[in-house]
This record gives sequence, structure tokens and C-alpha cells, in this order.
Amino acid sequence: MTPEPITRLTVLLGRLPGIGEKTAQRLALHLLRTPELAHDLAAALGQATERIHLCTRCCNLTDRDPCTLCADERRDARVVCVVEGPPDLMAIERTREFRGRYHVLHGVLSPLDGVGPDELHIRELLARINGGEVQEVILATDPDVEGEATALYLTRLLKPLGVRLTRIAQGVPLGGDLEFASQATLAQALIGRREV
Amino acid sequence: MTPEPITRLTVLLGRLPGIGEKTAQRLALHLLRTPELAHDLAAALGQATERIHLCTRCCNLTDRDPCTLCADERRDARVVCVVEGPPDLMAIERTREFRGRYHVLHGVLSPLDGVGPDELHIRELLARINGGEVQEVILATDPDVEGEATALYLTRLLKPLGVRLTRIAQGVPLGGDLEFASQATLAQALIGRREV
Repeated sequence: MTPEPITRLTVLLGRLPGIGEKTAQRLALHLLRTPELAHDLAAALGQATERIHLCTRCCNLTDRDPCTLCADERRDARVVCVVEGPPDLMAIERTREFRGRYHVLHGVLSPLDGVGPDELHIRELLARINGGEVQEVILATDPDVEGEATALYLTRLLKPLGVRLTRIAQGVPLGGDLEFASQATLAQALIGRREV
Repeated sequence: MTPEPITRLTVLLGRLPGIGEKTAQRLALHLLRTPELAHDLAAALGQATERIHLCTRCCNLTDRDPCTLCADERRDARVVCVVEGPPDLMAIERTREFRGRYHVLHGVLSPLDGVGPDELHIRELLARINGGEVQEVILATDPDVEGEATALYLTRLLKPLGVRLTRIAQGVPLGGDLEFASQATLAQALIGRREV
């Protein structure tokens, strides 16, 4: 009943994360009502896939090489913050607290999903450390099972290289409520307590 | 900091209804990780905007003319169901209860938004009725203020043409709970009560 081009557009939109069948249909019909947006979006998709690639140094998504972060001489090349993906990098950049460089793994170790060390961009990280400039590696993977396993793996791998290894602090989130913090979070907050 | 092609893609995705800034960023990064989906989506957007247009009879979205619904000789051309938009038509089709034809207004009367009768596809509906084949017009606009106003406007416009005019029934939804039905819904359910 529905014309094939609409069905096809709906099916593809439905493959996006978090977009269900009904939402996909709504989006498809909206795009048909706003052909200018549909046209711009098609062009932007083409541009992005064509021009965006990984920075050969930090493996972040970029349209130049090295990326603007790696090319920025004002940033401290001696400190490298290792993150799981580009959204994590963006989140840390928004804090304006970090003026070092990054390394993007593009994933975490997850044996069940078939993601081993070779699937992550660890080789490039090793090359950077062996380059000699790096003095500290901050492990900023997520504080969940896979993120912890990845941080542990990297710790064992990098420790022998004589580089300083740190892990981002875990504890009760700011503005949070002790009462509602999870048991594990509260335990970490106690273990990681600091002198005042 | 974020490369321009990613920013542009994110901004455009954020213009879609129900897609906020964070979701748009997540979708953009997902599309960059799945270039095949990005490529197919760009192509589907181009195809859809190029090939989809309004059926000259019923004004539904279609890639042929007349659309498959209007071209289907097994459907009763004497009964025309008037709906606000393509999603409403699809919803009614899914019930498999209706074997007549449709007419898609592509909106509702909404003076505050600058939508008057000329912005809706009412002229095409009049042409169909004047063609002589139509015997009943079912007004299936939404049971909200604009939908009711549009149904009332169409009633006044079409009544003099001698065509039978009906409005879809309003009452408590199936599987619903009387206790939680709105006052207005319950009032309509009482007013529209039927002999058993």
C-alpha cells in the first residue's frame, strides 16, 4: 500500500539506534513534507561519510590529518586521555578542564560481542607511547564492567613501558544524593576518599 | 572542535521532530560508524523526494498517478474517507475495515498557524464530489479542536451538494477504563450511545 520509496526510507531510518518503527514512519513523512531538509540531509550524509576519517594519531573522527586537537600546539602532548568513543571526548572537552591530547579506542573489550584488543585502536596508542613524548596516560573508559576490563587490560599492557597511568576518579556524582547512590558507587567513594 | 561535516549532519538531524541535540549527535556518530547505512539513507532520501508526489485524485503521497488506492477498482469509489494526513490513512488501512477511497487534506484548519481552507486540499475533494460518483463522505479528522473545526467546516461546505456526510464515532477507547476516560470522552460516549 505504501509507495516503495517511502517504505525504504522508513526501514532505513528504523535502523538508527533508538528509532522505532512508528518514529521512523513519522520522520519519513516529515522529510517528505520538508524536501529542502531531506535534500540537505542527503548531502550532509554524503559529505560526512566522504570527508570524515580517523586521525592517524589519536583515532578521533576528523576531516583533516592530524586532527585539530592533535595539531593544536598549545595542548600538552605529554598527557594522553584514553576514551571509548568520540562522544566521551566531546563530553570531556565540554568540561574545559583538560588541555592534553586524546586517544580514541572506538570501543571496549567485550569478548561476548567478539571485540578483542585487535578490534580497538590500541596499536596506535602503543606507537604514540613508544614515540617517547607521552608521560601520562589517563584511562577514561566508562566505569562499567567492559570499561573497567579495558582499563585493566591497558594497565597491564602499558605499565612495563614506564609511563604514568591514572584512572578517572569514581565516587558520588556532583549534585547527587548519598541516599540514592548505588552501593557500588558509594563503596568506591569511600575507598577513593581524600584528605581535606 | 567538532569537524564541520559532523556538526552540519548533527544540526540537520536535530531539525527532525522529536530529535533533540544529544540524540542528533548520537545518530550522527552512529551514521559515521556505519557508512553503508549513511550511504543508503542518502540515496533513499534523494529517491523519496524525487519520486514521491501527491496523487492528483486523493492527494495521498504516491510514486504513481493515480495512486494504488485510487487505481484499485475493487475499492468502493462511492465512499470517501477524509483524513488529515498520510499517517491517519495508514492507521485506517491497518484496521482492514474500510474498503472505500480516501482524501488527504494535509493539515487541519488552524487560523493561529495561518492554515485556512485554501492551504488544505479541499478544492480537489470538491472536484471529486462534483464528479458525481461520491455518495458518502466520512469525516475522519482528529477528535480535537482543530479536527472538529475542520469537520464542521467541511460539513457546511459539502451539505448543500447532497452527499451523505458522516463523522467517525467518538467514545471510550477499546480496552480503556471508564474511570480514567476524560470527562469530554465520557460525555461523547453517553451522547453517542447506541441500542443494543
